[in-house]
Amino acid sequence: MGERVFINDVGPRDGLQNQAKVLTPEQRVQLISALVDAGLTAIEVGSFVLPSAVPAMAGTDKVIEALPGGIASSQVYYSVLVPNQKGFQLAQSAGVRCVEMVVASTETMNTENIRRTTEQAMAGCEQMIGLSKEGGIDSLACISTAWECPFEGLVDADIVIKMSDQMLNWGATRVVIADTIGAAGPDAVHELMNSLVQRFGAEHLACHFHDTRGMGVANTYAAVSAGIRHFDASVGGLGGCPFAPGATGNVATEDLALMLSQAGYETGIDLKKLVAAADLAGEMTGSPAGGHSSRWLKRQIEKGAL
Amino acid sequence: MGERVFINDVGPRDGLQNQAKVLTPEQRVQLISALVDAGLTAIEVGSFVLPSAVPAMAGTDKVIEALPGGIASSQVYYSVLVPNQKGFQLAQSAGVRCVEMVVASTETMNTENIRRTTEQAMAGCEQMIGLSKEGGIDSLACISTAWECPFEGLVDADIVIKMSDQMLNWGATRVVIADTIGAAGPDAVHELMNSLVQRFGAEHLACHFHDTRGMGVANTYAAVSAGIRHFDASVGGLGGCPFAPGATGNVATEDLALMLSQAGYETGIDLKKLVAAADLAGEMTGSPAGGHSSRWLKRQIEKGAL
Repeated sequence: MGERVFINDVGPRDGLQNQAKVLTPEQRVQLISALVDAGLTAIEVGSFVLPSAVPAMAGTDKVIEALPGGIASSQVYYSVLVPNQKGFQLAQSAGVRCVEMVVASTETMNTENIRRTTEQAMAGCEQMIGLSKEGGIDSLACISTAWECPFEGLVDADIVIKMSDQMLNWGATRVVIADTIGAAGPDAVHELMNSLVQRFGAEHLACHFHDTRGMGVANTYAAVSAGIRHFDASVGGLGGCPFAPGATGNVATEDLALMLSQAGYETGIDLKKLVAAADLAGEMTGSPAGGHSSRWLKRQIEKGAL
Repeated sequence: MGERVFINDVGPRDGLQNQAKVLTPEQRVQLISALVDAGLTAIEVGSFVLPSAVPAMAGTDKVIEALPGGIASSQVYYSVLVPNQKGFQLAQSAGVRCVEMVVASTETMNTENIRRTTEQAMAGCEQMIGLSKEGGIDSLACISTAWECPFEGLVDADIVIKMSDQMLNWGATRVVIADTIGAAGPDAVHELMNSLVQRFGAEHLACHFHDTRGMGVANTYAAVSAGIRHFDASVGGLGGCPFAPGATGNVATEDLALMLSQAGYETGIDLKKLVAAADLAGEMTGSPAGGHSSRWLKRQIEKGAL
């Protein structure tokens, strides 16, 4: 068995919230079940945000109630995104054992996206990390637009290093370095992740890539080379935004799983079942889902080689 | 200006020969002209093979006669594939200044593909490299299926190292290490290319990737990290085989050019014009052409940001 690399499938959250079609909680559970069946051991299952702001995430409480193995399953590490203290309390009441909170690297992105200054967003993050620790809940602190911001352009590595340092000092279980708009290339990824790994250790870090410029797999490889072993990805590359031409979803879980298994890493994922989960996601959302490797994977399945 | 990375666009040869639709020599020249206009400084423009075997490459002599700047242009490094001595002589008569010859890494692939044993294929290669030197013509010696063979599976690195050594000793200008079936992942690419660079120096090596499993860009990054500065790629990812479901073309030139320019390398390529060339290729072949970054690139063009 090779060294383990952990993939957290964020399709049911980051993927679905960017689809034109809103799925029912039952459909979302069906997709999550397909992912569990495919061997995913970490899944972001929803978020406690205002349903008026993100209709696709309404009913996350119902999703949680119907999760395979239950929200506190020992087989699958379920997490939920929480935007604020209210969301955190809902997650805690629902028995969630891992919450994710997001702060952008730049002032403009925080203001535009969550109507808070970076200072306010960081204060909220500190508070939620504190509440998580008190409640025995894991916390993933995500730094979004960590390489490039759509408003402010390239982001200084020192900002990301400083924010990571603060989040880890407050007690975050892991800091997730996110290329939210899919702007980074593998060179930049290797450089930043290498700096962060040197300072904080790979076990406290994760990466989250989008495939907007087709560099998601290359970026993952660059981060793996820097020592990172935790990645977000989305089944079938689910995501993108049907209203924003050119936007693309998260890097596809199947592309990562294939690349990592070829490199000798153990992901626990059954690629055949994962392709079936991606097909299910495509059917339910009405927009075809699949990574860059899907055509080849399907051919292997047809041939009985997978 | 960043360090130079050289992209040789093989779309007019490796790309077009795998398309269902056969283009006229005039159309092929039109595509090549679009590539020259986009700043490509190396292009594989055709091959001297039997027209009955590869109908798409019939009339390569006519293509050569109409190349922008002429076949011996000092602006663009035009090359031609030659399968044997007969093809070499035709290329030489046509004034070609760089020929490419291919030997597979395995016995079965050589037998199936060119009806020769590896020994015979290597002897032919030695002869053509010798003729090239005599004639003052550059020679690119390509080792196909360098990581994996569809018949024999994974290829031992020692075989590729030994073949490269022989080809360079005979006087090949450069050895092109080719993942012909798009089976390699970035880990394997980095390992082999690192070994080869240590032994022979990066200036004597090139890489040729296919995107079958969606790892072409990651593989290029891995090879760049190992020191490689010469790559084959195909405009719009042209290639694949319409008769072989699941087969995919060369890695797209635009994906490489974008990734490399983001990493600070100089490719000389104008991405806007390259996207236009990919569109032209798609129109002419009747099958949409474009890399993983094309949707994003087109959006940048629409916005006037490129």
